[in-house]
Amino acid sequence: MSRTASPSQDPANPLTPVKSLVFDVFGTVVDWRGSIVEEGDAWGKTRGITVDWARFADRWREGYMPSMDKVRKGEVPWTNLDHLHRALLEDLLREFHIEGLSEQEKEHWNRVWHRLKPWPDSVAGLTRLKKKYTIAPLSNGNVALLSNMAKHAGIPWDLILSAELARHYKPDPEAYLTAVSFLGLKPEEVMMCAAHSVDLIAARRCGLRTGFLYRPGEFGSRRKADEAGPLDFDVVGADIVDLAAKLGA
Amino acid sequence: MSRTASPSQDPANPLTPVKSLVFDVFGTVVDWRGSIVEEGDAWGKTRGITVDWARFADRWREGYMPSMDKVRKGEVPWTNLDHLHRALLEDLLREFHIEGLSEQEKEHWNRVWHRLKPWPDSVAGLTRLKKKYTIAPLSNGNVALLSNMAKHAGIPWDLILSAELARHYKPDPEAYLTAVSFLGLKPEEVMMCAAHSVDLIAARRCGLRTGFLYRPGEFGSRRKADEAGPLDFDVVGADIVDLAAKLGA
Repeated sequence: MSRTASPSQDPANPLTPVKSLVFDVFGTVVDWRGSIVEEGDAWGKTRGITVDWARFADRWREGYMPSMDKVRKGEVPWTNLDHLHRALLEDLLREFHIEGLSEQEKEHWNRVWHRLKPWPDSVAGLTRLKKKYTIAPLSNGNVALLSNMAKHAGIPWDLILSAELARHYKPDPEAYLTAVSFLGLKPEEVMMCAAHSVDLIAARRCGLRTGFLYRPGEFGSRRKADEAGPLDFDVVGADIVDLAAKLGA
Repeated sequence: MSRTASPSQDPANPLTPVKSLVFDVFGTVVDWRGSIVEEGDAWGKTRGITVDWARFADRWREGYMPSMDKVRKGEVPWTNLDHLHRALLEDLLREFHIEGLSEQEKEHWNRVWHRLKPWPDSVAGLTRLKKKYTIAPLSNGNVALLSNMAKHAGIPWDLILSAELARHYKPDPEAYLTAVSFLGLKPEEVMMCAAHSVDLIAARRCGLRTGFLYRPGEFGSRRKADEAGPLDFDVVGADIVDLAAKLGA
């Protein structure tokens, strides 16, 4: 009886040299929107405050790109994501008329990003992939945010990689190439995995392999999630468990 | 019946704010000398080569300080430990008359530092400490070396910190302060743990807390290991399991 070789064992396969998988985190590994809504609902009840928490989460996330762009263009010096989130939170609290929070309460709210919950398949999929590959986040989240999140949610990373290590936010090439360098690998030995095409296209330009996975629920009903055809990236999976299966892990 | 509070629960105790423990690795967590001797003996037999592997290991390690000092003084640009080790290895192979190694064999030898074995108490002690603290290496070893070592030996770090992230070798203050910054903590919330007084004294100058542990076998019979009295550092343990017990973990 012949056994079909896993694609990653075929020496002609471009995935054969891959030794490490690095993951986008917000939306790809964790459900930022659902997690913020859940904490908001619970907190609002204890305070007797009614807020459209989905909109609160969306507005917070929408502020993220222009904030990072200012850093990227050099208009402000390097600022990590915890600090960008905190500045955005001050505006949000005003916008949603949430008043009278102590410094400690604001700081607790800001650290909701450290407590985001993984999608149901994430920990199982990463646990499988860890047996075959070195796995790490490669997120615009700062190192402390990512390591606190992993500890809180039981995400089994081998190491924490972050745009903060390069002081360049994705999709700047420095973010990908610094991660590759710290791994001691060549770009083609590293696969960027994400639910966002823009991230993968930027990684591919730097020579990394690419793995797409589909997160239809990331933006709720307000925005359509990215989709990909089977040939758009080196691997296209329905989720992280499916990605593991397709990589023979 | 009164129950004695753990020292780390006492608000007057200087260890109360500690949230993260960072560890020196070579000699503190892993037995570099014993591991190199073991690999050397096994490899020598397959090649019919007789070498004093303990001396080989000692010579390799002795070369480490002057190599790092050149980087520290700016005489050479930043060079990570894998590359320093590799340059030293070329000299060593000549000194010990080991000839005819292929590039692949040299690279495999150089990566013996990625395969060093933990002391018998290390994994058990770190597993206990991980329940209470965020734990990371803070070594002069580069990120890839430390993450490969952890994966190989099952060392359960929460994240990998390294002098490489600061591009400054310990005991330069930048090495300690960069680690503290990536952890998102204050210096007094981080404890440096090491079997070497010089490392702890430098960390203390940066405001970190200090934990000493005793590794009498690090240098074999050729050199005495550092010792410490109970008041020399914030905590003094016989090994990592004892450190965990003393920290109430």
